[in-house]
Amino acid sequence: MSTEQTSRRASRVSPFIVMDVLRMAGEMAARGEDVIHMEVGQPFGPAADKAIAAAHAALDGDDLGYTEAKGIAPLRERIARHYEETYGVPVDPARIFVTTGSSGAFVLAFLAAFDAGDAVGLANPGYPAYRNIFHALNITPELIETGPESRWAPPIEAVRARLKAGMKGLLVASPANPTGVMLSADALRALIHETEAAGGWFISDEIYHGLSYGMAEHTALEFSSRAIVINSFSKYYGMTGWRVGWMIVPEPLVRAAEVLAQNMFINTPTISQHAAIAAFDATDELEARKAVYAKNRAFLTGALPKIGFADFAPVDGAFYIYCDVRAHTRDSYDFARRILRETRVAVTPGLDFDPGRGQHYVRFSFCGSHEDMRRAVARLGEWMRAQGHV
Amino acid sequence: MSTEQTSRRASRVSPFIVMDVLRMAGEMAARGEDVIHMEVGQPFGPAADKAIAAAHAALDGDDLGYTEAKGIAPLRERIARHYEETYGVPVDPARIFVTTGSSGAFVLAFLAAFDAGDAVGLANPGYPAYRNIFHALNITPELIETGPESRWAPPIEAVRARLKAGMKGLLVASPANPTGVMLSADALRALIHETEAAGGWFISDEIYHGLSYGMAEHTALEFSSRAIVINSFSKYYGMTGWRVGWMIVPEPLVRAAEVLAQNMFINTPTISQHAAIAAFDATDELEARKAVYAKNRAFLTGALPKIGFADFAPVDGAFYIYCDVRAHTRDSYDFARRILRETRVAVTPGLDFDPGRGQHYVRFSFCGSHEDMRRAVARLGEWMRAQGHV
Repeated sequence: MSTEQTSRRASRVSPFIVMDVLRMAGEMAARGEDVIHMEVGQPFGPAADKAIAAAHAALDGDDLGYTEAKGIAPLRERIARHYEETYGVPVDPARIFVTTGSSGAFVLAFLAAFDAGDAVGLANPGYPAYRNIFHALNITPELIETGPESRWAPPIEAVRARLKAGMKGLLVASPANPTGVMLSADALRALIHETEAAGGWFISDEIYHGLSYGMAEHTALEFSSRAIVINSFSKYYGMTGWRVGWMIVPEPLVRAAEVLAQNMFINTPTISQHAAIAAFDATDELEARKAVYAKNRAFLTGALPKIGFADFAPVDGAFYIYCDVRAHTRDSYDFARRILRETRVAVTPGLDFDPGRGQHYVRFSFCGSHEDMRRAVARLGEWMRAQGHV
Repeated sequence: MSTEQTSRRASRVSPFIVMDVLRMAGEMAARGEDVIHMEVGQPFGPAADKAIAAAHAALDGDDLGYTEAKGIAPLRERIARHYEETYGVPVDPARIFVTTGSSGAFVLAFLAAFDAGDAVGLANPGYPAYRNIFHALNITPELIETGPESRWAPPIEAVRARLKAGMKGLLVASPANPTGVMLSADALRALIHETEAAGGWFISDEIYHGLSYGMAEHTALEFSSRAIVINSFSKYYGMTGWRVGWMIVPEPLVRAAEVLAQNMFINTPTISQHAAIAAFDATDELEARKAVYAKNRAFLTGALPKIGFADFAPVDGAFYIYCDVRAHTRDSYDFARRILRETRVAVTPGLDFDPGRGQHYVRFSFCGSHEDMRRAVARLGEWMRAQGHV
């Protein structure tokens, strides 16, 4: 018996390198070492008090049985109201699906829209699960290179050329992971129209909406009723382990997505659905948390350049700083491991996000407490100076 | 724009007909009608008190952030202990995955073991999500006919012939849905050995374990360390909407399944994992619930034959009665709709479980309260007499 027996598609799915970093960090913490986490997008602290109170109430008042596959009506209606209030876009709740995190939404959207063998575009660097889910579902990822020269956006000419060559869709995130870069309204509109004019599906990952530091946020639904929009309660709402997100699909995909959801998920965790409704009413708490991110961002964008981390993508949104470290290393994995071992600060090597140029990048996540950010910079600064990097 | 734009694989996934029944039942209930539910496998009442208490504690004491993709260590260790205590089988917790219901386990197991184009065997009738997830993942379902003549078990000769023709695996449930039939130890062992001798993967769906009414339960792990075992907290433990289950995979699949889980699910709902640990300590509550099912089973197997529902599969386990109704109808969907409309008792047409012969069957679920079962029989008996069926 050998590992050759795993499926070929599973063997194409690559592990998250950050998981190795997490494991090392966990082992160090278990030995009593004080590790500061800048590697994962895990917002500090629990969900908003109102969401937790709603969960307590649901535990006592609801049987927490199966729900409709698309999610409970009050949550879908509340999400519709959110689009009306936030973006001025009316959305029929019938097109809204509550999903098991954005992960569940990706699986449903990809299966509803794409067949085995289809090629679909992704920005490189990007969230690694996109291309890994593609591999699992026999969809071919078409990596579209982005970088400082395109302000980390997929160049429209490259998208056009791939569509012409048969690409069936394009997935774009704004704010993006790992770069934090956002698209302007014009840039987003242009990518949507280019994709849809060629008959492709445009998928907009809006999971970091709510976390912009000045630039206006736009949902793809402002520009198209045919776009597929995916979002989550994990980031702005701080409810990662609750596994609750949502997607909005155009009318022609509703039935297919519903039948897939019935069979593959049955329903999104019931208690999380109840808590999510209340999360929409926790604006004060959530804005206070966002203010910490903003403070972290201001501090880090000022302090990191002074300790040798000067070349990073514009931090428009989300809570990531994607930094070019080629002046210090040619192996970001080794670099991240040394930083962790010697400073007890965990960061993510860029290889997770970009299998090629990621060797030259690391991602700092700043969704931790402000004190942790200050302590991390002190440690990193001392180390960088000791290494002669500054 | 047209629905032709959904993927071909999504269009092969069929909706659950029971969902139409559920929708009609819901509409009737919304009009104030008193509908009795015998259509879905939704155990009556909430989770065990101990599980709910653990969830309250987790809400107050844990940030409910991301967990390891495989699930929290205390739960995986508790599941390992369950195998030791219940079946006398030692299982390395490293092979145990906590999953987002058994649904999540199916997706991970199928992707880890099978490639697009592989043919995998399923008993017909069977749980419709098996074949629908197969269609979504481009796996070809090989339906193996079962019936009274094989005591509703896949005949070993048919399995052998399909394996010889290239079938890559076999999925079997005992107790089974919709029949409630269980396999003897010898029958289970023979199917496993036949499948594995041909190099195929044997997947054992043990979601109805704990709900046997006399026959001994056997896990596939008693007979093979290469079998894939799937289970859930939804049925015996009564935690459907919590979306928490587990799977045990052989060593060669562990890494592939872990990487798939990281990318496709991230983690199983954190609060549900904490509650699940406590559910193992709620034996008194869970056995009391099972005693209600046993009482329902005794009542229905006695009462149904007197009102024209005499020909059903042996009710060894689970909480279903799969009844041949060809004496009364040639269209089980129409029959179920009439019963619902005219008696306000919801039952599931067999078509969900068997696209062919299902026309002649309905499934009664008896996981509701005992009083509901008595009221349902009174209504059904009156209707069957009025129809001249008795």
